[in-house]
Amino acid sequence: MSEKRFFHVGPDGSLRQVPSLDELLRAVEGGGYAWLEFFDPSREDLNPLVGALGVHPLSIEDCLDENSVPKIDDFPTNTFVLVNGYRILDGALKQEEIDLFLGKNFLITVSGCHGGTLRFGERVEKLAAKDPAALRQGPDYLLHVTLDYVVDSDVEAIESLQDVIETAEEDVLASPYNFDPKAVMRLRRDLLILRKSLFHSREVLAKICRKDSPFVSDHSIYHFRDVHDHLTKYFEIVEICREMITSLMEMYLSQVNNRMAKSANRMNASVRRLTMITTVFMPLTLLAGIGGMSEWSMMTGPSNWKVAYPAFLIGMAAIGAISYRLLRRAESRKPGK
Amino acid sequence: MSEKRFFHVGPDGSLRQVPSLDELLRAVEGGGYAWLEFFDPSREDLNPLVGALGVHPLSIEDCLDENSVPKIDDFPTNTFVLVNGYRILDGALKQEEIDLFLGKNFLITVSGCHGGTLRFGERVEKLAAKDPAALRQGPDYLLHVTLDYVVDSDVEAIESLQDVIETAEEDVLASPYNFDPKAVMRLRRDLLILRKSLFHSREVLAKICRKDSPFVSDHSIYHFRDVHDHLTKYFEIVEICREMITSLMEMYLSQVNNRMAKSANRMNASVRRLTMITTVFMPLTLLAGIGGMSEWSMMTGPSNWKVAYPAFLIGMAAIGAISYRLLRRAESRKPGK
Amino acid sequence: MSEKRFFHVGPDGSLRQVPSLDELLRAVEGGGYAWLEFFDPSREDLNPLVGALGVHPLSIEDCLDENSVPKIDDFPTNTFVLVNGYRILDGALKQEEIDLFLGKNFLITVSGCHGGTLRFGERVEKLAAKDPAALRQGPDYLLHVTLDYVVDSDVEAIESLQDVIETAEEDVLASPYNFDPKAVMRLRRDLLILRKSLFHSREVLAKICRKDSPFVSDHSIYHFRDVHDHLTKYFEIVEICREMITSLMEMYLSQVNNRMAKSANRMNASVRRLTMITTVFMPLTLLAGIGGMSEWSMMTGPSNWKVAYPAFLIGMAAIGAISYRLLRRAESRKPGK
Amino acid sequence: MSEKRFFHVGPDGSLRQVPSLDELLRAVEGGGYAWLEFFDPSREDLNPLVGALGVHPLSIEDCLDENSVPKIDDFPTNTFVLVNGYRILDGALKQEEIDLFLGKNFLITVSGCHGGTLRFGERVEKLAAKDPAALRQGPDYLLHVTLDYVVDSDVEAIESLQDVIETAEEDVLASPYNFDPKAVMRLRRDLLILRKSLFHSREVLAKICRKDSPFVSDHSIYHFRDVHDHLTKYFEIVEICREMITSLMEMYLSQVNNRMAKSANRMNASVRRLTMITTVFMPLTLLAGIGGMSEWSMMTGPSNWKVAYPAFLIGMAAIGAISYRLLRRAESRKPGK
Amino acid sequence: MSEKRFFHVGPDGSLRQVPSLDELLRAVEGGGYAWLEFFDPSREDLNPLVGALGVHPLSIEDCLDENSVPKIDDFPTNTFVLVNGYRILDGALKQEEIDLFLGKNFLITVSGCHGGTLRFGERVEKLAAKDPAALRQGPDYLLHVTLDYVVDSDVEAIESLQDVIETAEEDVLASPYNFDPKAVMRLRRDLLILRKSLFHSREVLAKICRKDSPFVSDHSIYHFRDVHDHLTKYFEIVEICREMITSLMEMYLSQVNNRMAKSANRMNASVRRLTMITTVFMPLTLLAGIGGMSEWSMMTGPSNWKVAYPAFLIGMAAIGAISYRLLRRAESRKPGK
Repeated sequence: MSEKRFFHVGPDGSLRQVPSLDELLRAVEGGGYAWLEFFDPSREDLNPLVGALGVHPLSIEDCLDENSVPKIDDFPTNTFVLVNGYRILDGALKQEEIDLFLGKNFLITVSGCHGGTLRFGERVEKLAAKDPAALRQGPDYLLHVTLDYVVDSDVEAIESLQDVIETAEEDVLASPYNFDPKAVMRLRRDLLILRKSLFHSREVLAKICRKDSPFVSDHSIYHFRDVHDHLTKYFEIVEICREMITSLMEMYLSQVNNRMAKSANRMNASVRRLTMITTVFMPLTLLAGIGGMSEWSMMTGPSNWKVAYPAFLIGMAAIGAISYRLLRRAESRKPGK
Repeated sequence: MSEKRFFHVGPDGSLRQVPSLDELLRAVEGGGYAWLEFFDPSREDLNPLVGALGVHPLSIEDCLDENSVPKIDDFPTNTFVLVNGYRILDGALKQEEIDLFLGKNFLITVSGCHGGTLRFGERVEKLAAKDPAALRQGPDYLLHVTLDYVVDSDVEAIESLQDVIETAEEDVLASPYNFDPKAVMRLRRDLLILRKSLFHSREVLAKICRKDSPFVSDHSIYHFRDVHDHLTKYFEIVEICREMITSLMEMYLSQVNNRMAKSANRMNASVRRLTMITTVFMPLTLLAGIGGMSEWSMMTGPSNWKVAYPAFLIGMAAIGAISYRLLRRAESRKPGK
Repeated sequence: MSEKRFFHVGPDGSLRQVPSLDELLRAVEGGGYAWLEFFDPSREDLNPLVGALGVHPLSIEDCLDENSVPKIDDFPTNTFVLVNGYRILDGALKQEEIDLFLGKNFLITVSGCHGGTLRFGERVEKLAAKDPAALRQGPDYLLHVTLDYVVDSDVEAIESLQDVIETAEEDVLASPYNFDPKAVMRLRRDLLILRKSLFHSREVLAKICRKDSPFVSDHSIYHFRDVHDHLTKYFEIVEICREMITSLMEMYLSQVNNRMAKSANRMNASVRRLTMITTVFMPLTLLAGIGGMSEWSMMTGPSNWKVAYPAFLIGMAAIGAISYRLLRRAESRKPGK
Repeated sequence: MSEKRFFHVGPDGSLRQVPSLDELLRAVEGGGYAWLEFFDPSREDLNPLVGALGVHPLSIEDCLDENSVPKIDDFPTNTFVLVNGYRILDGALKQEEIDLFLGKNFLITVSGCHGGTLRFGERVEKLAAKDPAALRQGPDYLLHVTLDYVVDSDVEAIESLQDVIETAEEDVLASPYNFDPKAVMRLRRDLLILRKSLFHSREVLAKICRKDSPFVSDHSIYHFRDVHDHLTKYFEIVEICREMITSLMEMYLSQVNNRMAKSANRMNASVRRLTMITTVFMPLTLLAGIGGMSEWSMMTGPSNWKVAYPAFLIGMAAIGAISYRLLRRAESRKPGK
Repeated sequence: MSEKRFFHVGPDGSLRQVPSLDELLRAVEGGGYAWLEFFDPSREDLNPLVGALGVHPLSIEDCLDENSVPKIDDFPTNTFVLVNGYRILDGALKQEEIDLFLGKNFLITVSGCHGGTLRFGERVEKLAAKDPAALRQGPDYLLHVTLDYVVDSDVEAIESLQDVIETAEEDVLASPYNFDPKAVMRLRRDLLILRKSLFHSREVLAKICRKDSPFVSDHSIYHFRDVHDHLTKYFEIVEICREMITSLMEMYLSQVNNRMAKSANRMNASVRRLTMITTVFMPLTLLAGIGGMSEWSMMTGPSNWKVAYPAFLIGMAAIGAISYRLLRRAESRKPGK
């Protein structure tokens, strides 16, 4: 998948591919500037840049490293810019690294390492075809074009994250039991990574706008300021997303607790009913059992049943009514402590 | 709905509408300054400004973009100011964008894009009628008038949010079951958006007050400082609202938990009563059952019932009293672990 | 209630009331400086200051506005200082605004608007009587006297808030059911308002100490630094109060949950007892019922009761013991899942 | 308890106590410098310093005030340094104030006010005996010695707080019921007070290291930097303690909830068992009751019992088995809603 | 375990061990520079550096102290750099201190105090063998080599912490009962310690990159910037870990509450079933008991059983059906309050 292409941008803004680095250097001597596009390069691909264009070996290391933090480093012959691009792959945030070297008459773009997919070729060629005057402005303008492309492709990832949060929010409100805390946890981490990366990327752009690099001309500052503004906007969106995640967890917790409170309330009613029934009927059942003994019949005598039986029933009804009353009164008193 | 109007403010502060941009440019050459009012303009409406007044194409992009973050950008011929206005529409915060271009002798106001409703026409015309001397002070004074108008209309939105929070607060205290967490979540997001937007707007005003723009004169600084103070005040109010939302969620959670604790307490009392009744009467019922068997009558003998029956009853009462005592003692011991 | 008084402080530090603004201006021309004291003034009272002393109309607006944020603004002829004072009224924090204009030879104090109660008259007259040399130091010293008075009266409000928090803390610990979340919520808001106001007031004092105003002399800086230190101290106290409120809410929640856990534990014991009793006695009662049927007597035969009845009872006791054992074992096993 | 002592440090570093301030001033004129040690002084003790050494009256106020925030103030003749020392008294943090005045040829140390216990005498005298060359370096070195002593005695307080937190942590893990939220709340406040005080003290030291005071020589900066590093270390420890307290509260809450969940689970099992038993045996008991009526015997006829009784028992067993089955099935279905 | 070795790096980059400090100083006079490697040194080992190389006694103290905060201090003859290294030992974070003194022609490395294990010998000797030109660049390059080694060995500790968090996360999701809050609490503290230490280390590197030390040459700045970038990356990872711990606790709490809610729901269903059964069968059992009394048989008469018995059974069925209906209706009504 590794690929390297060398382009010469003529003084008239024409874009022409040349076969080798040596030829590119010769072409640049006659005017215009060079664009070196690397996609998923090996160390061997990048090493020649040290001698030919004064790239620092540490910058080569940075290109090949994973998970670097966005930064801008000035070197005598070039300014090294490292920014991140973002994609959503299978619901998870994928971060990739873009390394850019801006020199007096060259721009080196390195992308696609560690599974990255961003390529600048098509975009730049389309621009060259549509508006050659634009490319003529120099390698710093081309740098802006690549940064702009990175920022444009970030939008999709950020909007996708926003959608995920909104869906999770609706899920929680529909039923707290459908809620997947693992997904929210992953989202939270993704958002923090995004926030930190955007923060550092914005710092990088702020430094370019402050003309920290001698290879950035005055008229292209406006364009970098525009990229900076986009990053600021994304940063604010991510902050809002983070606040929403916090709200989400709180809402989830409150939903669960609320359901638990309602459940407890309903159970309370059931238990009260159960206690009521048991309290009223248990003593009566005992009495009926006692009345069922032969001795009772013997006591009342076989002929007295016309008095004894109704009296017994009335007594039971009275006892039932009294226990019902007592229980009611006990229930209505608030339990202390 | 798109609308564009061109005004010439004469050296005497008189406001006069002119039909076209060309005529306006000619009028300005003779003194005074220009005010260009755009409401919901298309790209075609704004493009002529690039050539005629030196507006940067990126600023035009900013005017047409949605959800931009407030900012101030200096360009050779003008200072571009982007601020936000707020309205409450159907209970939700609506944010709109106002774009202002301040030049040496012109002010361009762009509003109404993406569903915004703020219009400056009426306000400025009223001022021109009431106090022509005011307008004479220059385009920077007119800029202050528009910013002041934006800030004035924000008050309503902020007060409306405060009302919503106070209502939610009363709802939670009245009954936690009436509480709508979704509404609070939306409110939280709105407040964060507002906070971030006010923060950036305040930064913009602070930069104007620090005279970052060459088109702002010394005597109008006092007016911009006043706008800045208003934004600071709104910012603090929003911060207090955010704190109240946090309190609200905590209070809601504590209310729910408190009710749950009370419910558990009441149920506890019911269950204890149930256990008591069951423990006392179940053994007695069993005994009555056993006594109900013919074998018992046979054992005691048919003639001994005068002794056997009372003895049986007394035995039952004794067992009942003992189990009641035992249970009481067991209950009073704190359950370990 | 509106009141205005004009004082001339002679070069010897003597304090003399003069009837009108005109007379005051004439007196000042001869040396010394002017003190203009306004209490709850109307716009008409303040407007003459614009012409006579160069007060900016926007400052007049600030005096009449409500809920302004503390600030310091420099104008050509005066420095406008806006600070807040605090009182506790019916348990709630009342914030009032104090506006001060310091010029080369005048000090204007405005207080009492929107229900404020702070008055400087008595304090200054007492000082003038006790130590005339102090007043001689100039209007900046008098400014310090008024600020010092404001800060002194804040102490009471802050100590009162501290008391409220400590009482709430004891209430929560005594019984979580006595806790009033509404009061805590109000307290929280009051503390945040206080924190923000103190923060801005401290900034104002820091600016005075940095000699941002040309009307403050070197030797009075020490006094303003002292006011600044007091505000810092109050600010830290308010921060500590805020932390205590957070602790309080957490403690309340933990108290409620702890009680709930204890309640659940006690209920658990009751339910286990109930299950035990029911499990042991229900089968026995059934058996006694079955044994109570005539068929049983028929089966065992009327004469076999001496064997059948004890056997029946022993069988019941055995079944009871077995179910008790089984239940114990089941209970001791931890419920899975 | 009030005590004041005056020392003259000779040009050779010798430490000699002199009886009065006047004598001290005379001694200093001949070279060396003065050290004035005050412990719990009254206003009368300190007032003479105003005239004799140019101490500002406001600094005297600061010495006598309680709970001042650490600070450094420059005056024409001296630099006033206010720092805090800490002790643990009866488990609670006690904060005390140390006031230091550094002049060209004098150092005033004030401690012991409002119940403070720090005394510098012994330490300095020991140093003077051991290493006279050290004292010779000037009053700024002596200032460092006192600050170093304060910082050294803080260690004990900080380590004691760490111990308290670790004990609380073990308590919570052993049993959440032993946990004392009041103690944690007090600890939290103590830690916040400590944090704020250390923050301001560190600022004071940072200012000394930046040579804000003209009375601090270059070679003693290294020593103040060392004090600053110690304060930074304590500050970080306090931050970690604060984080641990937050963890502790969360852990406590989670422990309580976890126990509650386990308790609910166990109760659930009990209730299911109870329901099972009741559901199976209640209908059977009813049947046995119905079977116990004489009418049943009449229906089956006295001689048919050999068929009727076993059939009745088999029917009961069948009904019992069926209700058991039905209940099992009902239980295994997840309760909806 | 204490060990000290002296090396002379010749002008050609050759590394040669010399037996004593004196010999080393003589060798350096002839060009090249010195490297003094101390591992777990005693005070006696370090004291000679004060006289020989101008090391400040306070720096010696710092080397021997425990738990110092990373810092950089400039002294006339050397720059003192203190950083931390990290290891995971038995699942807990171990922090160790590395002290470095960079002079014009020497580098002193001190490590291994208080149980530290980092040694630089092997690494430097390997480098000297592989690339002698590298060492030739001076002591500042050697400083970079040691810092780089420290940072490289940190990676392992950080990755190990990440693993622990991910395992804990999976544990919580698998079953909240397996979760060990104590481990999380320890992790949290470790992460905070790490965060603070990395923060200060990064500050140290930032100061080196800003050329605060006169002993750092321009061309080695790039290398220190690289170390700085690594620290920034670790810092961000630690921040993300901290956020994940917070998520973890929230998730744990929500899991526990969710289980509790489900448990409550299931119990609710059981209790409702129990209440239903009891309500339906208790009255019937009572009736059967009453029907079991001889008096009933007497009332209905021995010959009327053909009517009385079915009528009795039908009546019981009717009563059962009615109580079932009534209970259903009561249950379906939402319990108020």
